[in-house]
Amino acid sequence: MPAIGVAAAYGLLLSVQRLGDDEEIQKGKAAIRRGCEYLESARPTAVNLFWALEKTRQGAQEFIENEPAASLKKLKRFVLKQANDIRRLDIESCRKIGENGQKFIRNNTAILTHCNAGALATAGQGTALSVIYSAKRRGKRFRVYVGETRPLLQGARLTCWELKQARINAILICDSMAGWLMKQGKIDAVITGADRIAANGDAANKIGTYGLSVLARENKVPFYIAAPVSTFDRGIKSGRLIPIEHRPADEVTSFAGRRIAPRHTEVWNPAFDITDAGNITAIITERGVIEKPNAEKIARHLA
Amino acid sequence: MPAIGVAAAYGLLLSVQRLGDDEEIQKGKAAIRRGCEYLESARPTAVNLFWALEKTRQGAQEFIENEPAASLKKLKRFVLKQANDIRRLDIESCRKIGENGQKFIRNNTAILTHCNAGALATAGQGTALSVIYSAKRRGKRFRVYVGETRPLLQGARLTCWELKQARINAILICDSMAGWLMKQGKIDAVITGADRIAANGDAANKIGTYGLSVLARENKVPFYIAAPVSTFDRGIKSGRLIPIEHRPADEVTSFAGRRIAPRHTEVWNPAFDITDAGNITAIITERGVIEKPNAEKIARHLA
Repeated sequence: MPAIGVAAAYGLLLSVQRLGDDEEIQKGKAAIRRGCEYLESARPTAVNLFWALEKTRQGAQEFIENEPAASLKKLKRFVLKQANDIRRLDIESCRKIGENGQKFIRNNTAILTHCNAGALATAGQGTALSVIYSAKRRGKRFRVYVGETRPLLQGARLTCWELKQARINAILICDSMAGWLMKQGKIDAVITGADRIAANGDAANKIGTYGLSVLARENKVPFYIAAPVSTFDRGIKSGRLIPIEHRPADEVTSFAGRRIAPRHTEVWNPAFDITDAGNITAIITERGVIEKPNAEKIARHLA
Repeated sequence: MPAIGVAAAYGLLLSVQRLGDDEEIQKGKAAIRRGCEYLESARPTAVNLFWALEKTRQGAQEFIENEPAASLKKLKRFVLKQANDIRRLDIESCRKIGENGQKFIRNNTAILTHCNAGALATAGQGTALSVIYSAKRRGKRFRVYVGETRPLLQGARLTCWELKQARINAILICDSMAGWLMKQGKIDAVITGADRIAANGDAANKIGTYGLSVLARENKVPFYIAAPVSTFDRGIKSGRLIPIEHRPADEVTSFAGRRIAPRHTEVWNPAFDITDAGNITAIITERGVIEKPNAEKIARHLA
C-alpha cells in the first residue's frame, strides 16, 4: 500500500513511542486513537492511508485486549512489528504487481505514465513503474513518455529521475501534449497507479488521469491501472462517492517561488480525479489482473 | 490576422526603410523579397504570417510595376499604408468575430479557454476573447476558466491578466484539470483561437487544444473556434498536412531559470496540435458562423 500507508503505520508507532516504557498499556490505546485521528486528517483521497491505520489500530487493540497486563514497552515492540509487516507486504505487493503486469508491455513499444507511481511513492519498486521495471528485467526494449504532472511536477521531478536510475529511456512531455502524442500513434499503452478504487472499478488517481483515459479510449490505446488490493474501497460503490482533495491556489499561481499569474487570481486545484471503470482496460494487482473491471469481477478478485 | 501577421507586415516595412529615400525602386523589390524569406522562417504553423507577407509583397510588386520610375520614398509610404491597412482589418475582424460569436455565451454559464487568443495576440480585441468581451458588453454574466497552457503559460500569464483588466471573473486551472472540470458539469462551452485551418475544417492551435476538443465531445460540451478568414489555408486539404513547430527542450525541463527535471532529460515539445473538424461545433469568423464545419461549407464561406 503505497508509501502513504507505510508512513502512517510508522507514524502510529511514533505516537506510542512518546510514552514511557512502564506506563499503563491503556494509555497506549488512547495514544493510538489520537494518532489515528491526526494522521487520518492528512489527506482524504488515498485509501491506503486509512487501510494501514485501521489495520495497525485493530492489531494494537487486540494485543491490548489479549494482554491487558503487558508493559507499554511490549506494545511498542508489537506496533513496530506491525509497521514492518506492512512495509514488507508493500515491497512484496509491488514486486508481484510488476510480474503480473509486465506482459502488457511488448517489445519495441512506447508507454505513457502520469505522476509518480514508482519506488519513490511506495516502500517497494512501485506500482505502475514496477510493471515497467519488470518488463525491463525481462529484457524488453521500450520508451516511457512521462507527463510532467502539474501543478507539483511529480512526473518531471520524480519519475524522470527514477527511470534514469533504472536506465530506461524516458521522454518528458507537458500534460497537455498527451492527447496529441496518442493521436500521432506514438503510444502503445498508458499505465498509472491509483489512490482509491471504488467497488465498481472507478479509480481515483492524480488529476489528469481521467483525461488520459478518455484520450486513450478515443485513440484505441489500452489503459492500465496498477495498484495493490489495499487500494480498493469496498465500502464505496462508485467513483462519484470518493472524496477529492482540493489544494491551495499558490500551487498553481506560483512556481518555485515565482509568481506566474496576476495577484489574486482565482484557482480551481483538485489533486485527483476519477477515471470511469469503463475506460480502464485492466487493473493489475499483486493477485493478478482484472480485465474490463466491474463490480462482480472485483468482488471475486478481492474474495 | 492575429498579431503575428500584423507584425510581419510592419517587419517588411522595416526591410525597405533601411534603404535610402533616393535609391532605385528595384532595390526595394529585392529588399522585400529578402524580408519575406527571413520573416517566413520565423514560425511554420500560423498561416496568418504567410498571408500578411504575401499580401504585402504582392501589393508592393504591383506598385513597382505600375510606377517603375517612382522613388523609394514613395514605396516606403505605400508599404506603410499596406501595413496600416492590415492592422485596421485585424481590428475590425476581431470586433466582428466577437459580435458573431457572443450568442454562444449564455447568461450565467462558464466558458473554458486555452492559451491567449485575446488583445495581446491580435491588433484588436482578440478572437476567442473577443467573443467573451462582446458577451460581457451585452451585459451577460459568466465565468471563464483559463488553462495555464504549459509550457509557456500564456493562459496564466496573459489571459488571466487580460480578463482581469476587463473585470471578467477568471479562474485558472492546470491544463490536466480541464477534462475533470468538464466531467463535473462545470463548463458550458469551450472557445479557443486557431493558427491555421485546413480546407476541411481541421484546425491547428496551441498544443492541448486537440485534447480539449475530445474531452468536450465526450462530455457533450460545445467546442468553438474563433478566427479570422485569413486563418484558413485553402491550399491544405486536411489537418494532417499542416506543419507543426517543435520547440526546444528547455521550455519543458526548466522554468524561469530553474531546472525542474534531471539533466539531459529527453523532451517531446510540439507547440501546436490539430483538432479534427468533427470535434468542432462551429467556427466563428468575421463573416459569420460555420456550424459543423466541412470542406463544402468552408468553401462557401470563403467564396
